[in-house]
Amino acid sequence: MAFRVLILGCGSAIPTSRRHPSAQIVSVDEKYYLIDCGEGTQSRLRENKIKFQRIEQIFISHLHGDHYLGLIGLLQTMHLLGRTKPITVFAPGGLKKIIDTHFEISGHHINYPLTIETVDTEKHLKIFEDTKIEVYSLPLDHRVPCSGYLIKEKQKLPHLNIEKIKALNIPVAYFNSIKNGKDYQMPDGTIIKNEELTLPAEKSKSYAYCSDTAYYEPLIEQIKNTDTLYHEATFTDELSDRALQTKHSTAKQAATIAFKSNVKQLILGHFSNRYAQLTNHLAEAKEIFENPLLAEEGKWFDV
Amino acid sequence: MAFRVLILGCGSAIPTSRRHPSAQIVSVDEKYYLIDCGEGTQSRLRENKIKFQRIEQIFISHLHGDHYLGLIGLLQTMHLLGRTKPITVFAPGGLKKIIDTHFEISGHHINYPLTIETVDTEKHLKIFEDTKIEVYSLPLDHRVPCSGYLIKEKQKLPHLNIEKIKALNIPVAYFNSIKNGKDYQMPDGTIIKNEELTLPAEKSKSYAYCSDTAYYEPLIEQIKNTDTLYHEATFTDELSDRALQTKHSTAKQAATIAFKSNVKQLILGHFSNRYAQLTNHLAEAKEIFENPLLAEEGKWFDV
Repeated sequence: MAFRVLILGCGSAIPTSRRHPSAQIVSVDEKYYLIDCGEGTQSRLRENKIKFQRIEQIFISHLHGDHYLGLIGLLQTMHLLGRTKPITVFAPGGLKKIIDTHFEISGHHINYPLTIETVDTEKHLKIFEDTKIEVYSLPLDHRVPCSGYLIKEKQKLPHLNIEKIKALNIPVAYFNSIKNGKDYQMPDGTIIKNEELTLPAEKSKSYAYCSDTAYYEPLIEQIKNTDTLYHEATFTDELSDRALQTKHSTAKQAATIAFKSNVKQLILGHFSNRYAQLTNHLAEAKEIFENPLLAEEGKWFDV
Repeated sequence: MAFRVLILGCGSAIPTSRRHPSAQIVSVDEKYYLIDCGEGTQSRLRENKIKFQRIEQIFISHLHGDHYLGLIGLLQTMHLLGRTKPITVFAPGGLKKIIDTHFEISGHHINYPLTIETVDTEKHLKIFEDTKIEVYSLPLDHRVPCSGYLIKEKQKLPHLNIEKIKALNIPVAYFNSIKNGKDYQMPDGTIIKNEELTLPAEKSKSYAYCSDTAYYEPLIEQIKNTDTLYHEATFTDELSDRALQTKHSTAKQAATIAFKSNVKQLILGHFSNRYAQLTNHLAEAKEIFENPLLAEEGKWFDV
């Protein structure tokens, strides 16, 4: 089962020709979830050939313009393209007022059910689940209420031990119940234990999105052992004062969070437009965390 | 004096890889005015190397998303880039509420004076003037209150008749007053009439932006003899029912308005995303108006 992240935008507040504002697609077994939706996300989705209607849910971290100003346009285009499937947008309080104001004044309407769910940015809670994933809020430390998101694949079913099943001549009709943990009773009454008929499932993976935030240690416990962490690194260490003042992180701080939470992979993102080159971000993070990666627009990362 | 229009977006509501939502720069003697500001206008400005801070005023036709969703991002970027010069945004009622809601919830502020002026979309009035231009509202017929804009260069000063002035040995100190219409008194008391000392000024030009609108005859009188008309042509004639229903125009209707108002040049724009090719738009308009032009993103048109 593929669990991947496509970076659509990894710049900070000022869009440049190099980098766009925040947005990314999390793809779990070909289901799409959109995290953040900066201005122009529609265009990025098209460039990357992501079908708008395949987006299941939208998660907005906070209501600074570079994280949500593409949302209204995207919701309207989904309508114009004929969407009927419901969508829920998770976001800190205030988004509903913004969206209602737009729809009231523009006279636009949309034909599909749209739900705005307010995320409590003070609590680490499960806020969503479907057949594939669970999503948890991650309180962050920014200038306005802000939540990261932890996306965990659900426990997967074990594989059938085909060799053993063939040897015992077990009919196909029993495969599903075996995958779901049942033992099997042979025609002669013998019970074959489930462990003998199955092989362990693949490990469920997890992805944490943490942007925007100052260096924030309470995160560490909540994202412990996560497979992949996307952590903002707006600045490098020489601007740590500016990071503190604007409640952003340096690449060094992002790497420290990654190291302390024992994540397996770190992707740095949300780079200030002052950096044309990101070699310093990488070098600085490498001193603390082995092999950090730089977010890159249009690139898929395996979780 | 150069009076030109740069098309930044000439698509309709659904942005595609071919066309972006509405926005254009009107440049009068190197002063920039922005008309409409669809999502992504910031990026279009950068692609076309237009310095954000040189934009003097912004005119929004109506509050459908494809005409204003890039505005908040642009206003914020202007702030982040250090703007101190005031700006006024002219728009139909409602924009102030949209902008105030965003700033209240996002906690953003901007350091330069921002004024939102409400345009009465029922009246043809002078709404703005500076040293170069006068701007008039143009009531349009759309599904929500909507105003086109007529931009007229101010009457220009005549040229000095240098030959005559040299022959009469008139000192430089009098040049300004002569340009401004004064006669000249010779040392012997003879009065030389201003007409003898000047040559006619270049004709002041005018540009009308009419998008979005159904076919709307009251426009004709208001834009009579305009040099260049940008008129929306969302559809071609075979979709005239759809045009009527959505209060848009066909290419044929745009050309009819251009013909009846005796404009010198017609630019068709605001094309529905269903048209990959625009040859039918052009052919249809040509039957009524000689030599119509198709809007093209990234292209400057002389008014």
